[in-house]
Amino acid sequence: QDRSRGRCLCADIGVNIVLRKNIEKVEIIRPSASCERQEIIVTLKNGAGQKCLNPESKFTKNIILRTLEKQ
Amino acid sequence: QDRSRGRCLCADIGVNIVLRKNIEKVEIIRPSASCERQEIIVTLKNGAGQKCLNPESKFTKNIILRTLEKQ
Repeated sequence: QDRSRGRCLCADIGVNIVLRKNIEKVEIIRPSASCERQEIIVTLKNGAGQKCLNPESKFTKNIILRTLEKQ
Repeated sequence: QDRSRGRCLCADIGVNIVLRKNIEKVEIIRPSASCERQEIIVTLKNGAGQKCLNPESKFTKNIILRTLEKQ
C-alpha cells in the first residue's frame, strides 16, 4: 500500500460486511500526514484481496473485537 | 514481513505497553499455516520500528479499542 503519494488507501467509506473466518489480517492505520482519516483494511484469505471497513461502524468494532477474542 | 519461511513474526509473547499516540498502524494477523498463533504487530510513528503486542493481554484489547474509538 503506497501512501507516499499523500492520499488515503480507501477510496470510499468502506464495506460493513466481512465474514470473520475469511479474514487473514486486519490493519488499523491511524490518521497521518498522508491520510487524515483512520482506515481499516482487511486482507482476506486465499488471495481474495483486500476490503476497506467503515471505521465508524459498530460492525467493524465488533468484528475486530471478535477477532481479538478468538485466538 | 516475510511469512513464507513458515514461521511466526513475533519471536516472544510481545510487550504490553505501547503509547496509543505513538501508534501508526496496528496489524492483527490471524493464525495460519505459517504461524499457528494470532499475532498483533504495532508499527510506531517516526520510523521507531515495530513491536509485537501480547494477543492475550487486556492491555492489547484496550489499546485497540481506544484506537478504534478515537478517529
